[in-house]
Parts: sequence; structure tokens; C-alpha cells
Amino acid sequence: MKLYAVIVAGGSGKRMAAGIPKQYLELAGRPVLMHTLERFKAFDESIEIITVLPENQLLFWAELQKKYSFNIPHTLVKGGKARFFSVRNGLEFVKEPGLVAIHDGVRPFVSPDTIKRCFETAEKLGNAIPVTSPSDTLRMVTETGNTPINRLHVKQVQTPQVFNAGLIKKAYQQDYMPEFTDDATVLEKTGIKINLVEGNRENIKITNPEDLVISNALLPGFL
Amino acid sequence: MKLYAVIVAGGSGKRMAAGIPKQYLELAGRPVLMHTLERFKAFDESIEIITVLPENQLLFWAELQKKYSFNIPHTLVKGGKARFFSVRNGLEFVKEPGLVAIHDGVRPFVSPDTIKRCFETAEKLGNAIPVTSPSDTLRMVTETGNTPINRLHVKQVQTPQVFNAGLIKKAYQQDYMPEFTDDATVLEKTGIKINLVEGNRENIKITNPEDLVISNALLPGFL
Repeated sequence: MKLYAVIVAGGSGKRMAAGIPKQYLELAGRPVLMHTLERFKAFDESIEIITVLPENQLLFWAELQKKYSFNIPHTLVKGGKARFFSVRNGLEFVKEPGLVAIHDGVRPFVSPDTIKRCFETAEKLGNAIPVTSPSDTLRMVTETGNTPINRLHVKQVQTPQVFNAGLIKKAYQQDYMPEFTDDATVLEKTGIKINLVEGNRENIKITNPEDLVISNALLPGFL
Repeated sequence: MKLYAVIVAGGSGKRMAAGIPKQYLELAGRPVLMHTLERFKAFDESIEIITVLPENQLLFWAELQKKYSFNIPHTLVKGGKARFFSVRNGLEFVKEPGLVAIHDGVRPFVSPDTIKRCFETAEKLGNAIPVTSPSDTLRMVTETGNTPINRLHVKQVQTPQVFNAGLIKKAYQQDYMPEFTDDATVLEKTGIKINLVEGNRENIKITNPEDLVISNALLPGFL
């Protein structure tokens, strides 16, 4: 089965203190996004990578690739005004039949085992998303206060979310809805059940300044 | 108002790969538990610290204190067979009137601001617990599959959980129930509403080997 990875890195870096978008911040001497692409190439040499970036960052990314002698081939696609539209743009370059992994550009610590589990289950069942169990107690905020949630029933969702290419391409033809917080919720809206597989705890999304500190610590073991 | 901190470090280290219980693992050259006690002493020089440890670790802790010339005064109390009973034992040394912070020994990264917010709100309203917003998408596992949870309504709960001494001592006279996953759930069972204040994202619980890697990265900025 032909494998694809759509790497979405649309962030403008608003949540980071540093002015530079977080996908370009340096980890172990190279931009985060380069590490992320490498994880998928290392998993499968023949995987076809499609990277979605904001239009005004395409030139900057080209310059970075030259500067760091980065030579993993990938198709560059310009993003939309929200993640949903960026993924939709990326999926236009995915052909059927195939399996497509949709992954956050700012998750460079995804493990080979997590990628493998997602692809294997998606091949069998049509889709798979990686999850981990929360290590903190959780509470639900309600209109009148807040109540405990049984954390044994809650899972934290990561990426890559892997799908049968035909099913996810069709799902992304729907009109955008605010409850589409990830790709699984888009597919789910078409009536398909989502399959959970085990992710890896280091597979964090680099969102806040603290995450960068954590990332630099994780580097020696994982990159 | 008299301030107390009950530091609970009952873990036997079953979840860590290292054989040594996690509260004694070295961070920046000193056991985790010493850092944790220091945070409360630094917050208020006159705070009365009560540390609850498994009975078979009391001697080991005494030796560690000598070895590291650790001299923050604290009352040592032996733990029970579950966290609930350890806290109950610790609370016997808390006098009324007062405010008591109940804190995990393996959370050395609690910030002075988090401790302050908890004590201030607890003084006004009787209790306060620190929470943060999850950065991952969440799903609820159900009998028939799994469904998305609106993460805007979910909070991750940390410690210190701070209480009016009389109210929490009374709450801990209840019989143990499995739904008592933290101190807030114990107080809540007596019909009292729980107040949420902002925690700090670095305030992680050192539970897994990955957490230790993360902790070593956080050290320079926080300890």
C-alpha cells in the first residue's frame, strides 16, 4: 500500500514568546520541522511527504533548507486560514489507494513504534489515532462549578492520525465545523468509528515556551 | 493565620524503572523531596512542614538528610497503606485554626505564585486547588467506542491543594472510598464546593522515567 505523510505546520507562533514560528525553532541545531520530516522518512524510505506551510513562509523554508543542507524530498503546499483548510489542501496531493498519516509539524518526538502502530491498524481497520493516558487528575468545569472526571476513561490524543486515503479525502469534502478539532473528528462526522492505538509519552506538541525546554531535554534520547 | 504543608511521599517507586523510590532520585545533585520541601520553606519561613513517608524509609531519609546536610525542620510521620491514609496521618499534626497545603513530594516544580494563589484563595473561600488546561485533544472511552471531549471544559489538577484546617481534618474522618483520588474529592464528599486557581505548567508529578528527563531540563530555570 502506498504511504503518505501530510505534515501540517501552519502555526504563526502566536503562542510562543519567541517571534519565530515554533516549527522553525532550533532543536539540536536544526529546525523542529526538519526533525519531524526525518521521523517519517526514517520509518519508510518510500513514503511520500507533503508539507503544508503558510504561504508567506514558503520562501523562508526554502532558505532554511539550503542553509541546513536539508534534502528530504517533499511536496510543498500552501496552508489555509485554519488547520482544517491546510489539511484539505494537503490531501489534494494524496492519491488512492493509499494510507495517509496526518501529523503536526511541531511533534518531532513521535516514535517509530507509534508511527508503525498507526499505519498497521489503519491498514486493517481504515483509521487509527495514537493516544496516551493522562497522568494528572482531571476535572470538568460545569455551569455551576466543577466535578471530578474518572481519568481511567480519558485519553490524550496525539498525531499521526492515519487513514485510508479515500475515506479521509471524502470526509474533508464536508463543510468546516468548529467541532473539527483534529482529523479524527472530521472522519467521525461521516459516521465512521475511530480506532485508538498506543502513542508515546514523549510525543509532545511544542506549543509553549516550557515545551521547548522539555524538548531540548528529550533530544539526546530520541533524535 | 498559621500555615502548614503536609508533603506526602508514599511512593515505593513501582512505576519507575530505577529501583529507588522517585522522591529520592537526584535532581541537580539533591533528592527530589528536598527540593519540594524547600519550595514551601522559601514561600513562608514560618510554615510548619509535615512530611509523610513509608515507615521503612524513615531511616533512609534520615541518612539522606545527614549526607546532604539538609536542615529544613519538619515533622516526620509514617504513611498508611494508600495515599488517603497517609494524608490522614499527616493531618493529625495540623492544629486549628490554620490553613494546610497538601502536596505531592514528587512535584518539586511548584512555583511560588501557585502556592500563593492557593493559600490566598483558601483563606478567603475555605479551599483552593491549582489547575491547568490540557494542551492535547481529549477523548472519552465509552462502552461502545470513544467520543471527543470539549477540552475547554477540562482541567488538569495539580497540588498543593490548600484547605481550611478544620474542614479538611473533618473530611478525612470519613471512611475511605475508591473515588477519593485526591484531597479535593475527599472534601467535596462533605458537600463543599471546590475552588480552582491557576497552577503552573512546569508543576509536573515525577512518575515515569520520561518525567525525570523533563525534570532535569526544567531545573536550571526553576530551582
